[in-house]
Amino acid sequence: MATKVTPISGFQEWLPADRIAELVVLDTIREVFELHGFASINTRAMETVERLAGQGEDADKEIYGVRRLAAGPDDAGDTSMGLHFDLTVPFARYVLENSGKLTFPFRRYQIQPAWRGERPQRGRYREFIQADVDIIDVGSLPDHYEAELLLVVADVFSRLPIGEYHIHVNDRKICEGFYRGLGIEDVTGTLRIVDKLDKIGADGVRKLLLEAGCTEEQAKQCLALAEIRSNDTGFVDQVRALGVEHEMLDEGLAKLAGIIEVANEHAPGVAVADLRIARGLDYYTGTVYETMLVRDPGYGSICSGGRYDALASDGKRTFPGVGISIGVSRLLGKLITEEGLTASRETPVTVLVAVNDEDSRRDSMRVATALRARGIPTLVAPKAAKFGKQIQFADRRGIPFVWFTGADGDQVKDIRSGDQQPADAASWQPPADDLRPSLVLPETP
Amino acid sequence: MATKVTPISGFQEWLPADRIAELVVLDTIREVFELHGFASINTRAMETVERLAGQGEDADKEIYGVRRLAAGPDDAGDTSMGLHFDLTVPFARYVLENSGKLTFPFRRYQIQPAWRGERPQRGRYREFIQADVDIIDVGSLPDHYEAELLLVVADVFSRLPIGEYHIHVNDRKICEGFYRGLGIEDVTGTLRIVDKLDKIGADGVRKLLLEAGCTEEQAKQCLALAEIRSNDTGFVDQVRALGVEHEMLDEGLAKLAGIIEVANEHAPGVAVADLRIARGLDYYTGTVYETMLVRDPGYGSICSGGRYDALASDGKRTFPGVGISIGVSRLLGKLITEEGLTASRETPVTVLVAVNDEDSRRDSMRVATALRARGIPTLVAPKAAKFGKQIQFADRRGIPFVWFTGADGDQVKDIRSGDQQPADAASWQPPADDLRPSLVLPETP
Repeated sequence: MATKVTPISGFQEWLPADRIAELVVLDTIREVFELHGFASINTRAMETVERLAGQGEDADKEIYGVRRLAAGPDDAGDTSMGLHFDLTVPFARYVLENSGKLTFPFRRYQIQPAWRGERPQRGRYREFIQADVDIIDVGSLPDHYEAELLLVVADVFSRLPIGEYHIHVNDRKICEGFYRGLGIEDVTGTLRIVDKLDKIGADGVRKLLLEAGCTEEQAKQCLALAEIRSNDTGFVDQVRALGVEHEMLDEGLAKLAGIIEVANEHAPGVAVADLRIARGLDYYTGTVYETMLVRDPGYGSICSGGRYDALASDGKRTFPGVGISIGVSRLLGKLITEEGLTASRETPVTVLVAVNDEDSRRDSMRVATALRARGIPTLVAPKAAKFGKQIQFADRRGIPFVWFTGADGDQVKDIRSGDQQPADAASWQPPADDLRPSLVLPETP
Repeated sequence: MATKVTPISGFQEWLPADRIAELVVLDTIREVFELHGFASINTRAMETVERLAGQGEDADKEIYGVRRLAAGPDDAGDTSMGLHFDLTVPFARYVLENSGKLTFPFRRYQIQPAWRGERPQRGRYREFIQADVDIIDVGSLPDHYEAELLLVVADVFSRLPIGEYHIHVNDRKICEGFYRGLGIEDVTGTLRIVDKLDKIGADGVRKLLLEAGCTEEQAKQCLALAEIRSNDTGFVDQVRALGVEHEMLDEGLAKLAGIIEVANEHAPGVAVADLRIARGLDYYTGTVYETMLVRDPGYGSICSGGRYDALASDGKRTFPGVGISIGVSRLLGKLITEEGLTASRETPVTVLVAVNDEDSRRDSMRVATALRARGIPTLVAPKAAKFGKQIQFADRRGIPFVWFTGADGDQVKDIRSGDQQPADAASWQPPADDLRPSLVLPETP
């Protein structure tokens, strides 16, 4: 096959060292999700287009349809299918399909690619990995999970070199109660307009609110609410000072204050009560989260989610839940592509076993087998070249150790320091830091 | 969303306990691939249809085409794309695209889903996970890699409860040299016919060979070669006894004998020289592998591959390689679906921390944080229910330990034995076997 090959925009593929960095990040996320008691599920890449298009505004514009190329126009059995554009729609479908076999409350994590046909841009890809956790129950769901998910994410990020970040938290009930207290009836429409604050500014939002039928005073109050932000429970008094009264507002303020308190105890400095966060999606009914890197808030949210009360329903029962999704590809687009995060080497290999001559290749293989049996990633040199060449082979790949077999006993050389020592394949152990590649941050971030 | 939900044939989704079993298998495969010095790559799900259709016979019939639903008929920038049907085509493309940035010989592993639109049947899915290793070089590739890949697979399977299996090995050069020595010119056509031996039997193959222009004697000899099988180097004498001479035959016999010798030293009882193995794909040029479960050879190969000399070429250089692919979904279709392999519990959780009352939930959370910090998957009970209910919650999920906080010190109960002991969250350690779910085989296999 001798076709010219060029990358396709919007589809990120890493070279081996960067892929190792991605794996470290994915492994960390998975480890923390499991430590917090989430079970993995994996759903098929395809859903029916009907199900995909039924979720979210404009979702159909982004769907990749899938069809067997060999299928005739009347091919029965081929439902109209599309690639999922998030992991929430497949999860809701999985819960409905298996509700009789799952144990509720069901805590699941899911780390998979998703696909959207939208125009690729900074931090936005056509194929991207999401890492989601959700807790879903039957009928009702305790509020404490809304604080818990924030702590799960904070635990993930505490183990990754992502720099300073804030999880911005709001509660839809605060906005809804406040708007209702003001006498505004179209809550969803108002939320959508206020959600544009970062894009079009206060004047733009004010104009749209007036067009939608708000009074000057209502618009002013909506904007005042959206300006409130605090890293402690101070936001409660600031809202009270606006003088709006509503039962749902009280409920939302108490819930959000509780979340900020728990967050500040377990993950100080991470959470910010931010009353402008609305999230576009209609299905959120309580807490909503967005996560920004402090050094580049304009890059967009790297981790978002919220509480939903009726995303999944089988007609008789509803399954309320709360979920949060780490945009792994978006995060790595920042850390790897823009900032140069990578791995300490381009291969898992810790030890290269040199080959003296092709007749003794089996001796080198025996050493490799002994080292691997003790968990040390090991490679046998491809050719019985001069030792200088074999050391160069290791050096070019970042392999730290070269092993030499010999009739008088083996030796192992740390090619970084040049230090060479006698060694026994049955017992030699590399320093723990050299056993696996590690994340490497560029010197000037 | 209140639509009726039913599974889609050919798309396997596991319930949580079985998914944990799948993860143990996937983790084991990855660990062994890394121990043997393979670096991970991950390619996008889509390739151009042109590239996909250019590979293999009838490949286009199985391709899932992908198209943005919102794309107009003249939408430029949308090349005709399809989902990959294996990991070899994307790997070859990745090597061509990145050849200037990779270090050769390049050893990569790749564990991803692939999609084929063919009719679902036992062990065959429309979406399935493959786990591939390949070693690829520029210009030429040493023969010893063909033995090495067999050992990598044997190392994987030695760590999984798959039962007795055989890796059947052949070398295309044996067949080609033998056929040429017989005066047969259409080597590929002959290989394809002989490859049908298991399906249509010796008489059927003989008939097709005669139709293709073979003499009775040639057909008889081709069938005699295909019947040869040995678990040591005995096959060499059996081939010699057929009296056919050709330089390429000698070369193939020597290579295969070397592989069987190395295999029998490092993984006794695994390899079988089996001269009927041909593999349908045209691009193999040397060793070919297929792997059968001894208890059910009719289930089909769970791990196949071979050597190719010109799968990837940029016009100036060719990239010969050798690769092998574990059919993870096919293997799990046997182990999980048919034989009942599962995991010891449906959640990663080792410890459930009971909650005395909602006011003390934060005390329970502190215990959980301390246990998680030491790598113990821990969950806080969802409700401050009666302790009996909380223990039942753990029991239903297979969580082995329940933790009780108390003013006079904490206690931990092994709910399987009923044993309850004082414990300190800063130091308590579960038995190593309880730290992670493990694979469980059904009692009657």
